[in-house]
Amino acid sequence: MEGRERDTVRTRRVVLDAAAKVVGTHGSGASVDAIARQAGVSKGGLLHHFRSREQLLLALAEDLAEQFTAAVYAAVDPRDHAPGRLVRGYVNATFDDLLDGSTVPEQAVLAATLSTVPGVAEVLQRDKQRWKEAFDADGLHPQRALLIVRAADGAAIAGLYEGGSDPEELQHARELLLALSRDDGPLVNL
Amino acid sequence: MEGRERDTVRTRRVVLDAAAKVVGTHGSGASVDAIARQAGVSKGGLLHHFRSREQLLLALAEDLAEQFTAAVYAAVDPRDHAPGRLVRGYVNATFDDLLDGSTVPEQAVLAATLSTVPGVAEVLQRDKQRWKEAFDADGLHPQRALLIVRAADGAAIAGLYEGGSDPEELQHARELLLALSRDDGPLVNL
Repeated sequence: MEGRERDTVRTRRVVLDAAAKVVGTHGSGASVDAIARQAGVSKGGLLHHFRSREQLLLALAEDLAEQFTAAVYAAVDPRDHAPGRLVRGYVNATFDDLLDGSTVPEQAVLAATLSTVPGVAEVLQRDKQRWKEAFDADGLHPQRALLIVRAADGAAIAGLYEGGSDPEELQHARELLLALSRDDGPLVNL
Repeated sequence: MEGRERDTVRTRRVVLDAAAKVVGTHGSGASVDAIARQAGVSKGGLLHHFRSREQLLLALAEDLAEQFTAAVYAAVDPRDHAPGRLVRGYVNATFDDLLDGSTVPEQAVLAATLSTVPGVAEVLQRDKQRWKEAFDADGLHPQRALLIVRAADGAAIAGLYEGGSDPEELQHARELLLALSRDDGPLVNL
């Protein structure tokens, strides 16, 4: 990579991380000024890389979707070739995040804020479609996969309205979902 | 109810609804002034009913937990006496909310904001304990109940990071969860 290109990549990374932090704390009220300050760059420098506040939030939504996808694939056990290996990666990536220390309030504010930004819905719908195709190729019955993934998502936010998460309960929930992803029998007759 | 008592109940209701709206949109930055303005009462009037911003947010957390509990019990079919009737009420109340029009971004910001207010965690933990006891008495295996409830919660927030919810998909997810709550056989051997 050329020096200038490397600097561009690095600056974009610093700005996106700063944007996630500021928007996750202050919600839709977060200004470009506040994000630039958090990133340690000038407002002009920020706007050189992201043309507007809206473009920055759109790039942030894309980046978060990519980061989560990368975390799931990194959590897939390379020795696991049984149906449901991607679902198990999804469960493990989600619970690893939760047990690592709670950033759930910030993530909820961030997701809620981004969901109202024009263009973000289309980015997320494309991401959803990619997940659907990946789960279809993962070998579990689609409803079994959906149930496990939704329950992992539910566990991820439960701490918000339950006054925190108990690590032992999280571990039990993870084991339940992993067991469900390994059972080849019918889950329910529909 | 005496006239003055009725006025107190009515004013508290108006202020709590206004607080939910303002905090759900503006997050933790919402001021007592903005909430009083939204409620159409004076700041002094608001502080007569709720001593401080923190007390108001604590009362709001209690009120939201009570409202959701009431919605779940209202959604329980009075003719349904089979195990899992409360779980079915939970699923139906959650999906009715989702299909009624999305206030998910506001609710996520509201839950995230309230979760950081001192004293709210204790309110929510007591609510969680009441749910646990109610589900234990509902007759399903605790892990089956947990799985269904978590998956309903996951469905409730999925729209946030999927760029919206498809009503048909929501209906399928609801039917899957209701079917799981009716199957008396073992879900998975743990």
